[in-house]
Amino acid sequence: MTKTIGIIGGLGPAATADFFQKLIAATPARGDSDHLRVLIDSNPRIPDRNAAIAGRGESPAPYLVAAALGLERAGADLLVMACNTAHHWQDDVRAAVAIPFLSMIDETADAAAASGAATIAILAADGARGAQLYERALEQRGRAWLRLDEKAQREFMDLIYAVKAGDRSEPIRAAMRAHAHALIASGADALIAGCTEIPLVLDAPDVSVPLIESTDVLVRRVIARARA
Amino acid sequence: MTKTIGIIGGLGPAATADFFQKLIAATPARGDSDHLRVLIDSNPRIPDRNAAIAGRGESPAPYLVAAALGLERAGADLLVMACNTAHHWQDDVRAAVAIPFLSMIDETADAAAASGAATIAILAADGARGAQLYERALEQRGRAWLRLDEKAQREFMDLIYAVKAGDRSEPIRAAMRAHAHALIASGADALIAGCTEIPLVLDAPDVSVPLIESTDVLVRRVIARARA
Repeated sequence: MTKTIGIIGGLGPAATADFFQKLIAATPARGDSDHLRVLIDSNPRIPDRNAAIAGRGESPAPYLVAAALGLERAGADLLVMACNTAHHWQDDVRAAVAIPFLSMIDETADAAAASGAATIAILAADGARGAQLYERALEQRGRAWLRLDEKAQREFMDLIYAVKAGDRSEPIRAAMRAHAHALIASGADALIAGCTEIPLVLDAPDVSVPLIESTDVLVRRVIARARA
Repeated sequence: MTKTIGIIGGLGPAATADFFQKLIAATPARGDSDHLRVLIDSNPRIPDRNAAIAGRGESPAPYLVAAALGLERAGADLLVMACNTAHHWQDDVRAAVAIPFLSMIDETADAAAASGAATIAILAADGARGAQLYERALEQRGRAWLRLDEKAQREFMDLIYAVKAGDRSEPIRAAMRAHAHALIASGADALIAGCTEIPLVLDAPDVSVPLIESTDVLVRRVIARARA
């Protein structure tokens, strides 16, 4: 009997749909009935995570906890959150439910460490950066990291908000590639796509080093856990 | 205050993800918070609708009702089902919940009638065909319909099950186009894509008459209702 996956989503909604679609595509299946049951709460009204970490907005914690409890009550056996930055509150979510929560940050950092790379570049939103989610996870795994400078980070955030507004045009893609290439030029031998909007405009063939996409890593891990 | 949309899904899962993605893309939004809250129960273990209508399998009705009740309990204000064939049991779903249920069949038949077409071709799965879901809906709206012959229908169902197994290759697309073209050659001046797997391998530019896609129609209608 496979486990039912609960997805805390809407952070943003397009990234949630991308996560769901990749989960289906990565599930070995010959027909409908081989797929996993998935419950999704895509709630775009959850307060902005980046603003909250910067101290400029309401905390999303009570909303994330409410979503987790609702998914548990609806029958989820295993929870994930389709947003890196929201993992700043992962301990609140974990504490609220009796079912396991699979962390996108921990699983992605494990995959990055397993890639054998010595210096890992992090592309992540302001909130995840401010909370040092990936920085600390990589240090715990004995890996060096580097990231965009302040000015490039501001340009990167403009791209993320453009993607959230539905723009996946070539100029947005080109600008995202440029940020990735700059990090590689600075000495990274692997790159973490640590925001679920990044894979909507950046693909593995766009970069010359292993691209460790948090969405793909968590999709693979949650399928393995649900089928175990 | 917008309404929360509940999606009874998993019938199949890829069609549910397609519906969710189109719903996000069709929502006017400048950022996350302009999007609608969506709750999804994607349960691929719901018994095969086509087999049940043919009298060869367990009824999905209790599962559809359970999904509807679960979504209502979780906070949905409005229900939809991302599967045409499952609408054979739409009255069971309607009777079980206090919130409105928006019918993919009725909305699509309305859109087809509004297109001004006199003779409307129906591409639909065996179950929807056996239950005459679109045939009766079009007759109620004073429209003539035509559909594939028995042999072509069997070939069409092989395509649908191939899509459900993840195949969206060009040979599958070419075969789907050929069925659409044959119906147009028989005199149809509009075509209903009456199965949520069809738009995964057939696009409007592939056919010379208006293609009325049940997924697109319901997406537009449910957004309007949720924002009303």
